[in-house]
Amino acid sequence: MTSNQKLSFASDYMEGAHPAIMDRLLSTNMMKTSGYGTDQFSEAARQRIRQACRAPEADIFFLVGGTQTNATVIDAMLASYQGVIAADTGHISIHEAGAIEAGGHKVLLLPQHEGKLQAKDISHLIQSYWEDENHEHMVMPGMVYLSQPTESGTLYSLSELEAISSVCRQAGIPLYLDGARLAYALACPENDASLADIARLCEVFYIGGTKCGALFGEAVVFPRHNTVPHFFTQVKQHGALLAKGRLTGLMFDTLFTDGLYERIGQNAIQKADQIRRCLHEAGYSFYLETPTNQIFILLTKQESDALCRLVTLDFWAKLPDDLAVMRIATSWATTQEDTDALCSVLKKVKK
Amino acid sequence: MTSNQKLSFASDYMEGAHPAIMDRLLSTNMMKTSGYGTDQFSEAARQRIRQACRAPEADIFFLVGGTQTNATVIDAMLASYQGVIAADTGHISIHEAGAIEAGGHKVLLLPQHEGKLQAKDISHLIQSYWEDENHEHMVMPGMVYLSQPTESGTLYSLSELEAISSVCRQAGIPLYLDGARLAYALACPENDASLADIARLCEVFYIGGTKCGALFGEAVVFPRHNTVPHFFTQVKQHGALLAKGRLTGLMFDTLFTDGLYERIGQNAIQKADQIRRCLHEAGYSFYLETPTNQIFILLTKQESDALCRLVTLDFWAKLPDDLAVMRIATSWATTQEDTDALCSVLKKVKK
Amino acid sequence: MTSNQKLSFASDYMEGAHPAIMDRLLSTNMMKTSGYGTDQFSEAARQRIRQACRAPEADIFFLVGGTQTNATVIDAMLASYQGVIAADTGHISIHEAGAIEAGGHKVLLLPQHEGKLQAKDISHLIQSYWEDENHEHMVMPGMVYLSQPTESGTLYSLSELEAISSVCRQAGIPLYLDGARLAYALACPENDASLADIARLCEVFYIGGTKCGALFGEAVVFPRHNTVPHFFTQVKQHGALLAKGRLTGLMFDTLFTDGLYERIGQNAIQKADQIRRCLHEAGYSFYLETPTNQIFILLTKQESDALCRLVTLDFWAKLPDDLAVMRIATSWATTQEDTDALCSVLKKVKK
Amino acid sequence: MTSNQKLSFASDYMEGAHPAIMDRLLSTNMMKTSGYGTDQFSEAARQRIRQACRAPEADIFFLVGGTQTNATVIDAMLASYQGVIAADTGHISIHEAGAIEAGGHKVLLLPQHEGKLQAKDISHLIQSYWEDENHEHMVMPGMVYLSQPTESGTLYSLSELEAISSVCRQAGIPLYLDGARLAYALACPENDASLADIARLCEVFYIGGTKCGALFGEAVVFPRHNTVPHFFTQVKQHGALLAKGRLTGLMFDTLFTDGLYERIGQNAIQKADQIRRCLHEAGYSFYLETPTNQIFILLTKQESDALCRLVTLDFWAKLPDDLAVMRIATSWATTQEDTDALCSVLKKVKK
Repeated sequence: MTSNQKLSFASDYMEGAHPAIMDRLLSTNMMKTSGYGTDQFSEAARQRIRQACRAPEADIFFLVGGTQTNATVIDAMLASYQGVIAADTGHISIHEAGAIEAGGHKVLLLPQHEGKLQAKDISHLIQSYWEDENHEHMVMPGMVYLSQPTESGTLYSLSELEAISSVCRQAGIPLYLDGARLAYALACPENDASLADIARLCEVFYIGGTKCGALFGEAVVFPRHNTVPHFFTQVKQHGALLAKGRLTGLMFDTLFTDGLYERIGQNAIQKADQIRRCLHEAGYSFYLETPTNQIFILLTKQESDALCRLVTLDFWAKLPDDLAVMRIATSWATTQEDTDALCSVLKKVKK
Repeated sequence: MTSNQKLSFASDYMEGAHPAIMDRLLSTNMMKTSGYGTDQFSEAARQRIRQACRAPEADIFFLVGGTQTNATVIDAMLASYQGVIAADTGHISIHEAGAIEAGGHKVLLLPQHEGKLQAKDISHLIQSYWEDENHEHMVMPGMVYLSQPTESGTLYSLSELEAISSVCRQAGIPLYLDGARLAYALACPENDASLADIARLCEVFYIGGTKCGALFGEAVVFPRHNTVPHFFTQVKQHGALLAKGRLTGLMFDTLFTDGLYERIGQNAIQKADQIRRCLHEAGYSFYLETPTNQIFILLTKQESDALCRLVTLDFWAKLPDDLAVMRIATSWATTQEDTDALCSVLKKVKK
Repeated sequence: MTSNQKLSFASDYMEGAHPAIMDRLLSTNMMKTSGYGTDQFSEAARQRIRQACRAPEADIFFLVGGTQTNATVIDAMLASYQGVIAADTGHISIHEAGAIEAGGHKVLLLPQHEGKLQAKDISHLIQSYWEDENHEHMVMPGMVYLSQPTESGTLYSLSELEAISSVCRQAGIPLYLDGARLAYALACPENDASLADIARLCEVFYIGGTKCGALFGEAVVFPRHNTVPHFFTQVKQHGALLAKGRLTGLMFDTLFTDGLYERIGQNAIQKADQIRRCLHEAGYSFYLETPTNQIFILLTKQESDALCRLVTLDFWAKLPDDLAVMRIATSWATTQEDTDALCSVLKKVKK
Repeated sequence: MTSNQKLSFASDYMEGAHPAIMDRLLSTNMMKTSGYGTDQFSEAARQRIRQACRAPEADIFFLVGGTQTNATVIDAMLASYQGVIAADTGHISIHEAGAIEAGGHKVLLLPQHEGKLQAKDISHLIQSYWEDENHEHMVMPGMVYLSQPTESGTLYSLSELEAISSVCRQAGIPLYLDGARLAYALACPENDASLADIARLCEVFYIGGTKCGALFGEAVVFPRHNTVPHFFTQVKQHGALLAKGRLTGLMFDTLFTDGLYERIGQNAIQKADQIRRCLHEAGYSFYLETPTNQIFILLTKQESDALCRLVTLDFWAKLPDDLAVMRIATSWATTQEDTDALCSVLKKVKK
């Protein structure tokens, strides 16, 4: 935070990129490279991600943003008569302006449980479809979409992911994991699902850059080679192919060098943990207990007004009795100074 | 029913067309007419429908089937960033194989109440959208879809339709009524919403032919002229333009001559009423009380098995404890003989 | 023609259906059948078509109209990044209101030669695509579409079809034949490509009903089983699934009983041949020499005006020097009386 | 060029961004801003672009890349039954992997003349559509797309643009100018169409950043306010909304400060002019005479092989007799050193 700015914990994409990335962008700026991801930085980044995922055969593509990535991947993997199963709080269900439907596919909603899908609900939906006498008149479930961490800041455990993966494989449909904030899952002490686990359990996932230290960019990983033929052309058709692919290549190469991706995740988690402790001590109510970089608290109108005069938070939802759910988000960029300042504010407001 | 066929109340589209329609198809068969709805029969049918709807300026188009009509009308009236509000039991929500999404639009689901939408739920959904700080990242509600009678055989009252229409007009979005079985609504003693009321309250609706006496065909009515510019071309683009438009024209001309459309609706309702009385007397449980040509009863496995040996019904849903919901449907073609036979069967099984 | 109607050779879809079809529609009208093509008439029709095509494993689906059929088949067989090769005069290239593009696919145009594609042009287009360094940024050719007879009334010879099929198979892409007027090709003395040849050379084709004796309906034939998984659901999604599938089933069953389909084709060809002889004798210029039921003649403005006062023809194209191309179309329904009357008119005008 | 790299004139997007941009990205990197283009840099950039275009009411949106921008703008401005007119060499016609068709729209091709559309061809296409008796079965022309400079490196003169704009306005359809390389048009001595002229004559255009000094980014300008309602949501739906909108905002703010955009265009043109003089002197044949940063030369196989050993160029097209068209592209980043080196190579090869 520069000194004249208001304290803000509104989101995890308020700053530019991690300084190590900016350094490399600057030092390579005038090099000439070929376009569209055929450059040496992109190739190096792919190699590093394959190693981190223990998926030596993985096909990896760098796209620009999350909605774009979801729309492209889902459209590429579904047949025209298939839909994608998602939690009703999933990003594709609500906050992508209908991008999945614009690609011709229905989002098949399941109720969320702390932001998560449950394997048994997925299994039931798939079974109900095939048992329905009229299923040929209905949208066939063709994929499962989940986010790790979820949009609500919660985490799937390894055993939950294994159960969902198992349901998907029995049904013969791919599992897709949206890792927009994956760094903040991987850095959680509570987390027991590694990148290698994800690569083993999913047919496709993406490692988020935009919210995890890069200027922008998401790395789509197909752990098994040629899962989707001609995916490059589909990226192009979706307007998701960056001319200067070197940029995303270099950013991911940097993030996956010397453990930077996990390290910047840890910063966010440590700061969030400090804030959580402070909230507990000060007597705040939590809307949901979360272990990652997003914290959701319940505030009265008065508390909310007082707080928002001093710090910018994200308004999440309105509840009955004038209660509001507000989100506090930390990130790779959150400083100790700002965290301490926020804690002071939180204590002051609650007194 | 021909004598060697099993008794069937499985649906309302098991026969061909009303004999009066067949007669006219036969007598005009070798006449030459121009194509695509420019013929004299289509023009006569439009005129009769305008009169029946008291909508002298109405634009009327004849399409072939229900899913096609819904997909074409909804796609034509929504902007690319808009979705259509429907009950979660709505035909477009479940049984059209994702045709609305294939056209690029999300179906915004609301919970059904006896198969119906409620004005206050619609109002709340629209208000929530506009009040949401992130609404520009979400699908804008752009239309309301409802069916009269509903897919569950229930009816909207005139005041319910007026309330929904009022919500739509305040929000500036069109109300679309799917009248696949409209004849069976109009013929109900309980019904108080006339064709003229529908034309007054909706921006677009369709009068069903397929299930109401025609071989096929649905008449799309825009009560106000030029509601959708170039709708003809959009019908063509959706593959919904019949070369021999004379057929639907002539069928609707016949249905709207001398009150045939309402008369054949009455046959279905009278037969359904007789069956309802029989069911009550025999002590059957109803899944839902309905006044139209669709009756939904609750059966134990034993009852269901016994019944299905003697009569073909439509399996509707499986409930806990091995209970099944079965549908009995009457139609314009249901005979007294078959109705009496069904009543005998129903009594025998329940003993 | 009824006596008070103007003589018309405007198109081949001016009447209803062949009387044998009307008879059967009438005699089966009150039978109850299941819907969506699961009835006994549809099954019988499939069996007859399999025999006529000598394709015992063929999957056959009955759709309603040509544009709908093209949009559904092409969308079902192309990957999202593929386009369909067609002549620039092809029906899908011009007269389907962009239905192919509405499904997300580009029509890759090739120049027509008398309305036909040439194998070498197709081969060159495919080779150019794969040799282009930027082909991953381009639309991949994924299918070949042609019409037999063509929109210009010409015929592919068996050897031409074999050459095109061979190019397609070497490239691994399907060949699709639009047979909207197939009866009029099969009935031509010049024709040497039988239904069995077409089934052998194409991955999919349709046998036209709308223009060849039925009220409506097109029979899509996949000569090899399960060419397109879940095609039924795709038909539904495209709004192309007729509730009373019995109608198309019964119509095609009738057309393929006792050689009716070829017989009604012969009527059109015989009448067209008589008209062609008359045109030659009277000294008319032909825009294109055609052997089928469509005849294209060149007229001065004066001739055109004189002719159109006496007979309704289809205006085809405007040429320089005020010349017009007019189309004369015969059909299964063309009578000897009308043909003689037309010949008189043609002679009178040319004097 | 760093010393160990091969000389390359392959394209105008080989480097990162202009140093002035990199400086500002670095100096603002840790500032917190709101997302999605609501930040102060984006607002400042919009203000500067409005001034440069003399369009004080303009709505301006920053997207990421060219194909994405074309797909989003064209989809937003066309009705579902409309297509976009483009030259057969237009970027949307060939090199966008069918992105326009994926959005449901046909590209209506016109022959190019030195890469350009001609007003009279556009006028003729529109008139032919409306005069065609079957036009309701065809794709309606709904927009004109052109590129300035063209994909072939040529320029529209002001009078050519005025003629095209006039045709569009008479027809009531928007004119859209793709300015992917607009800096290189504006910097040409031959150019007489200013940004203000473009804003006056077009309904929408974009100012290219990716190829003109930015890391990425294209500025879509609607000179008149609210030309497309809810365009923001359509950008989101197309996956084209950058979370950190500050990046494109800041880059365009920099490009439009102190005339940087035109200055870097001039560098490319001066270097291209030097190369053109050298080519003329050395006796090379030009495939097309162009005044901008793209030069197309004709080479024999032997020349092409010799040249490509020493410098990376872009292979453009194969001609008969083993002739090849190769493209030389300069850019904002082309150095005097590299230009001199290329000239030496060119002279050496031709000797």
